[in-house]
Amino acid sequence: MQIFDTHIHAIKTGLKNLSLPQNPENLYDPLRYTLSMNGKHIRPLLTFLAADLFGLRETEKILPAALAIECFHNFTLLHDDIMDSAELRRGQLPVYKKWNSNIAILSGDVLMIKAYEQLAKSPTAHIPDLLKVMNRIAIEVCEGQQYDMDFEDRESITVTEYLDMIRLKTSVLLGGTLEMGAILAEAEPKDQHLIRDFGTSLGLAFQLQDDILDTYGESASVGKQIGGDIIENKKTILLAHLLNHISEVDKPRLTTLLHHEKEEKTKIKEVKNLYEKYGALEKATDLKIKFTQRALKQLESIRAEEENKDALRKIVNNLLNRQS
Amino acid sequence: MQIFDTHIHAIKTGLKNLSLPQNPENLYDPLRYTLSMNGKHIRPLLTFLAADLFGLRETEKILPAALAIECFHNFTLLHDDIMDSAELRRGQLPVYKKWNSNIAILSGDVLMIKAYEQLAKSPTAHIPDLLKVMNRIAIEVCEGQQYDMDFEDRESITVTEYLDMIRLKTSVLLGGTLEMGAILAEAEPKDQHLIRDFGTSLGLAFQLQDDILDTYGESASVGKQIGGDIIENKKTILLAHLLNHISEVDKPRLTTLLHHEKEEKTKIKEVKNLYEKYGALEKATDLKIKFTQRALKQLESIRAEEENKDALRKIVNNLLNRQS
Repeated sequence: MQIFDTHIHAIKTGLKNLSLPQNPENLYDPLRYTLSMNGKHIRPLLTFLAADLFGLRETEKILPAALAIECFHNFTLLHDDIMDSAELRRGQLPVYKKWNSNIAILSGDVLMIKAYEQLAKSPTAHIPDLLKVMNRIAIEVCEGQQYDMDFEDRESITVTEYLDMIRLKTSVLLGGTLEMGAILAEAEPKDQHLIRDFGTSLGLAFQLQDDILDTYGESASVGKQIGGDIIENKKTILLAHLLNHISEVDKPRLTTLLHHEKEEKTKIKEVKNLYEKYGALEKATDLKIKFTQRALKQLESIRAEEENKDALRKIVNNLLNRQS
Repeated sequence: MQIFDTHIHAIKTGLKNLSLPQNPENLYDPLRYTLSMNGKHIRPLLTFLAADLFGLRETEKILPAALAIECFHNFTLLHDDIMDSAELRRGQLPVYKKWNSNIAILSGDVLMIKAYEQLAKSPTAHIPDLLKVMNRIAIEVCEGQQYDMDFEDRESITVTEYLDMIRLKTSVLLGGTLEMGAILAEAEPKDQHLIRDFGTSLGLAFQLQDDILDTYGESASVGKQIGGDIIENKKTILLAHLLNHISEVDKPRLTTLLHHEKEEKTKIKEVKNLYEKYGALEKATDLKIKFTQRALKQLESIRAEEENKDALRKIVNNLLNRQS
């Protein structure tokens, strides 16, 4: 869509124009590196689309909040990669590997502050409200990351716990991004909440789709090895469902696969067999559809021009029917 | 002073009342632990004293910014301790040792966000200006920490480089703390800048005094081993001066002391001998006095009731004549 391209162009230009000093190099080079990686800029795009929805079209008023969200998102990647010992980020070395952990900690800290610095460039009257949203989602994202790390040490988690974790870690950021656009466009408080809830539902569906693609996508489209989550015993919706439904008879075999099977292909194939036997893909797909429908219903109930909603409907379709 | 006790009580109560959820425990227990350590609360006290100076006495208007500063300061300690591999923090185990690095990274992140969350509770009209100050000092503190780390890998640094590093790492936070108090009290912009500059000068003198005490203090008063900086080859004002003035004849001996001398007492004694020979203590003391006098002069030029300045003069005296 033309409108997407215009916004994405504004976001890319805004990121290039962030005033990153030359020195200290070890602080700012990692940020230049991180921000030049080719992200999709979905989150800042949503700030623009929410503002659009409620009739605000002035890029210069929307851009600071959109960039704040993008900086914040990139900050989380910098720190998460250390905590998760990530091998790659967008096909390149994560900062903590290309430099070191200390540099990734500190440049991540600066990137979070840069997010607030961008936010402070928003129209003055809206800064207090935007700041409250930013703080709320920032804290929730950290809580989500902590639950995610805690889950790695647990034998089993419930589907409800899993959904609550991804709501915090992934979804509230999408909700908050949209809410900021609505605040800037001076939408009614009720509509600000509805668009936020729409974003949260969309985020849940989005993460479930991520989990599904990691195991059931086409390697060529997804751009990474299929089955990575299985190899790493990552507690996805699929594994959470399986752990809660597996019979006592099959459990020892699963335990062996998770903790002792060294042959990756065998592990992927046999865990997928168990997913099939216990309906894990169906469960994940059902949930994805449920949250997608909820999102679309929430979008419907927002009081705004129906045709203005098309861009957001298109985002829903793009995100959820994507193969990568 | 009675007034100090009142403010410190408000700060301690405010910290106790921070709404830290029970869960996730691994995120919030480290914060409860950190915030219950017995800090001196100098920085938030300065917010109150600056507000006092310009006639604002309403605790509830000042407290959020003061707590924001205290949260931010504690966030820097959490992350710095990881980067500096600190053994102890206020006599207790640092979070990264009591828990682990990942937990210290993430709970540090949350504490920084908590700083902004507190700031957002300030009187609405002042939030945009307070936010700008907060962002500026936060970025400068990170830059200072990066320079400090960079210096560890360098053979030598100049006194100017050292002063610029501690200005960023330590002093701007004191300046910004005071500036926030002045903003809340609606002082004239010129006076906001003067009180900030006063704080920066004070901060420089304060850090120089820290360097001096680490080598020349009384162990019983300082509460830690004297000579710790020498043992760790820390680039203090004393070592920076020595490295820039040592003769070619004495240099090999210093190199041996820094990199090969295992006997701590010998190392401390001989490095101190070199400090004496090259006037390092005099240089540090001269600079400390210079910045103290500058601070007092800046305080003088502020347009405010002279008797209101007594509390800040007392702080200057307390900080700079302290033995610990």
